[in-house]
Amino acid sequence: MNLIETLKELVPADIVVTDPDTMEGYRRDSADLVAAGKPIAVLRPRTTAQVSSIMTWATQTDTVVVPRGAGTGLSGGATALDNCVVVSMERMNSIREFDATNHTAVVEAGVVNADVGRAVADAGLFYPPDPGSFEVSTIGGNLATNAGGMRCVKYGVTRNSVLGLEVVLADGRVLRTGGKTVKNVAGLDLTQLFVGSEGALGIITSATLRLRPTPAATATFVASFPTLDAGGRALNSIFAAGVTPSMLEIMDNATINAVENYQRMDLDRDAALLVIGQADGADALDQVDRMVACCDEAGADLSVSTSDPAESEMLLQARRLAGWATMEQFPTIIEDVGVPRTRLAELLSTIADISEDTGIRIATVGHAGDGNVHPMLLLPDLGVDARNRAMVTADRICAAALALDGTITGEHGVGELKREWLTRQLDDVSLGVQASIKRALDPKMLLNPGRGF
Amino acid sequence: MNLIETLKELVPADIVVTDPDTMEGYRRDSADLVAAGKPIAVLRPRTTAQVSSIMTWATQTDTVVVPRGAGTGLSGGATALDNCVVVSMERMNSIREFDATNHTAVVEAGVVNADVGRAVADAGLFYPPDPGSFEVSTIGGNLATNAGGMRCVKYGVTRNSVLGLEVVLADGRVLRTGGKTVKNVAGLDLTQLFVGSEGALGIITSATLRLRPTPAATATFVASFPTLDAGGRALNSIFAAGVTPSMLEIMDNATINAVENYQRMDLDRDAALLVIGQADGADALDQVDRMVACCDEAGADLSVSTSDPAESEMLLQARRLAGWATMEQFPTIIEDVGVPRTRLAELLSTIADISEDTGIRIATVGHAGDGNVHPMLLLPDLGVDARNRAMVTADRICAAALALDGTITGEHGVGELKREWLTRQLDDVSLGVQASIKRALDPKMLLNPGRGF
Ligand SMILES: Cc1cc2nc3c(=O)[nH]c(=O)nc-3n(C[C@H](O)[C@H](O)[C@H](O)COP(=O)(O)OP(=O)(O)OC[C@H]3O[C@@H](n4cnc5c(N)ncnc54)[C@H](O)[C@@H]3O)c2cc1C
Ligand SMILES: Cc1cc2nc3c(=O)[nH]c(=O)nc-3n(C[C@H](O)[C@H](O)[C@H](O)COP(=O)(O)OP(=O)(O)OC[C@H]3O[C@@H](n4cnc5c(N)ncnc54)[C@H](O)[C@@H]3O)c2cc1C
Repeated sequence: MNLIETLKELVPADIVVTDPDTMEGYRRDSADLVAAGKPIAVLRPRTTAQVSSIMTWATQTDTVVVPRGAGTGLSGGATALDNCVVVSMERMNSIREFDATNHTAVVEAGVVNADVGRAVADAGLFYPPDPGSFEVSTIGGNLATNAGGMRCVKYGVTRNSVLGLEVVLADGRVLRTGGKTVKNVAGLDLTQLFVGSEGALGIITSATLRLRPTPAATATFVASFPTLDAGGRALNSIFAAGVTPSMLEIMDNATINAVENYQRMDLDRDAALLVIGQADGADALDQVDRMVACCDEAGADLSVSTSDPAESEMLLQARRLAGWATMEQFPTIIEDVGVPRTRLAELLSTIADISEDTGIRIATVGHAGDGNVHPMLLLPDLGVDARNRAMVTADRICAAALALDGTITGEHGVGELKREWLTRQLDDVSLGVQASIKRALDPKMLLNPGRGF
Repeated sequence: MNLIETLKELVPADIVVTDPDTMEGYRRDSADLVAAGKPIAVLRPRTTAQVSSIMTWATQTDTVVVPRGAGTGLSGGATALDNCVVVSMERMNSIREFDATNHTAVVEAGVVNADVGRAVADAGLFYPPDPGSFEVSTIGGNLATNAGGMRCVKYGVTRNSVLGLEVVLADGRVLRTGGKTVKNVAGLDLTQLFVGSEGALGIITSATLRLRPTPAATATFVASFPTLDAGGRALNSIFAAGVTPSMLEIMDNATINAVENYQRMDLDRDAALLVIGQADGADALDQVDRMVACCDEAGADLSVSTSDPAESEMLLQARRLAGWATMEQFPTIIEDVGVPRTRLAELLSTIADISEDTGIRIATVGHAGDGNVHPMLLLPDLGVDARNRAMVTADRICAAALALDGTITGEHGVGELKREWLTRQLDDVSLGVQASIKRALDPKMLLNPGRGF
């Protein structure tokens, strides 16, 4: 019996895919430039018990496993490794429980982020984490990467909206962490350890999510700046004003033009920077007015604000399209650096210098309120020279972030793409501790080996 | 050379205390009933390098180490073990850095919680976690227990206000985790792993804390209920109303009387339950009015509200005194169970039944907004019979919380007191994973062995 036949003894045959054409669709995530290996099978389990059987089998047969959500990851963390099995969680997509009064939902890992939001909206609740990919990416992928999004400046990242997990460990054991209470200090917080572990410590099969009451009101503004410098001053004065934005985003000139080329929105193609912000709660409009005043004072040449929900959505639309628009038009590497937010203006000007130097165009978009930006490297082609210059550019951007007390990745994770850069951010003690935790939970190094840390 | 002499070769002699009278003050924390061992020395390091030398020495000499903050812990986690050294962090009490625009502060582990608040108040900032012990307990102790408090219903627990740590590991290596950015997914989130680890994975020497802008306005209310039932209904209707309290606390009849005996405050000695709540932000008074309406409708026989800061403080004063008042008047065991908050009313009535059954008086106080309450067992004396009945009572309270999908500890930690109960909440898989992480980081089991998990 070959390997895959031994597996078919343990799980229903229809969850095992070995057809090369179908498998092709599971070899890569959205990190275009990461080389993909060849899996021996793609597995699409329907139940936790099946995931457990898969891992028991993987441990017995020393088979490497790459967990996969929707494959929207931008660091190559879900890219297939040679001779691995890809475990796609797409069929584990049911909402097991929704407790509207306790503000919790128990959902399977394959549930799409936006579907959680839709399921709870009628009860006056929402699920805060909203990565740009929220209509596609899965809760399991969001948890494994600790995904951020636009609302996390106020509501926190994915780890702040999860109370408990069900995880299948490398040896097939099923671990349950946390629970339904918002506070819980019984033992080490294993929930928090698995969030952000990029598939390397276990396969998340289900999660208890924490929901929030939908805010009474929301207001939105957009301000356009003639120079990066004026935009940076506006951001710093917003930070200093002590307002609480529920969103504070930026798009630079190259991003504005990429969006406008993708879908006409009448954006100002000459603006150096757009700042897009939102506040929610009873005083939303007042907070937005204060942010607009900061922008005007810093030299915005146009600013508009609204508390109308439909108009708000329109103002946000350009920002939401940014990632999709650039990925459609160019081979891209989407960077993901973070700095203490008051150093954002410095970072933006350094990025402009780097682009000038290496000749790689960069469109920068990002979560200004958190100091987390995505310089998107727009490659002219996929030739060796372009790739090499892109890697140098990315390398210098990471170095710039570190020099500003920042991080090489704010929300996309290390995956395959950032493994080398990680060793510049973390010292040997930190890497050693991470490796020892990996060995403790996955001694055979079967779960997404080399990814994440 | 004896053990302690070998240590004195490595660290300044004045940080090593072996005088029995002084050591006596470091043998216990605030869990009265936990038996305390005898340390061979109490160490009071001034620097991270000294803590590192201590741990290097401990590993070389197989010496057990009990880390200690202010000793306000309620689970016996800082209680001395026989032949251990107690490492008290009290002298590492400087604020290393305060970045008012980035809203961060780097503080040493021995800094008292309230001192952080005082240091940043003039800049219009505050540090949200506010355990009842905040004028005494240390940031290191708060981190090691993942302390909660009254404000965490809105602002989260200690783990939500920390961005990075400096930790000395069992073998003396100094680990730095996280950084100054609010988002960071470079590697496993070791910061979150050490928060709540109760001194069993490393000694926290310093932390980068996240501060928040002081809210523009605050409003407070108190409502008094003739029956537990009416109070429970009020809480459930507040939860359902989708308001965002920044505080939502309860005190039962026995607590009211304990406080009133301790300091006259003209509380209603006949009330079955007081609900004390707060909201902040521009619409604070409006939110408080909505909560008061819920209380009135549920049958409160008195409710008052105010947006005056001094009056607000007075309304909160009774709640703040509750723990100190009971501990002064009775030998107490302060329980710390949590349930999904909508099941709080059920929990309160079960607690009343248990008290009736075992004859141990219980005064219950707690963080209703988080479903986390502290049934305080008031022992008539410290005789064997009273102790035994108290342990049965605590045991049944933990069982009741678990039966309601809850936790045996919401914020105080497992320490020594809850070790046995922990095995009823967590299954073998969970305990096994925790043990494997402990072995990975502290293979000789020297750091607070047996505590925490
Ligand atoms: C246009 C666009 C916009 C984006 N915007 C954002 C954004 O705003 N914020 C942000 O944070 N990210 C963003 N991303 C990146 C990406 O969407 C997130 O990383 C997302 O969380 C990945 O989810 P996924 O289901 O696609 O996971 P995948 O890409 O399939 O996997 C991601 C990682 O998680 C692991 N994994 C997946 N499922 C599981 C599981 N059940 N158990 C264990 N490990 C698992 C994989 O092994 C891999 O390491 C964006 C991507 C695109 C294409
Ligand atoms: C009146 C009163 C009210 C209280 N109210 C609350 C409340 O509202 N919320 C709440 O959560 N708790 C509360 N507590 C409990 C207690 O104050 C908290 O657990 C607090 O966080 C303990 O801090 P400490 O500095 O006193 O630590 P200690 O009691 O000295 O130690 C607590 C634990 O942390 C470990 N530890 C201490 N410092 C370090 C360090 N630097 N590195 C590693 N491990 C360390 C110890 O080994 C021990 O396991 C209250 C206690 C009292 C007496």
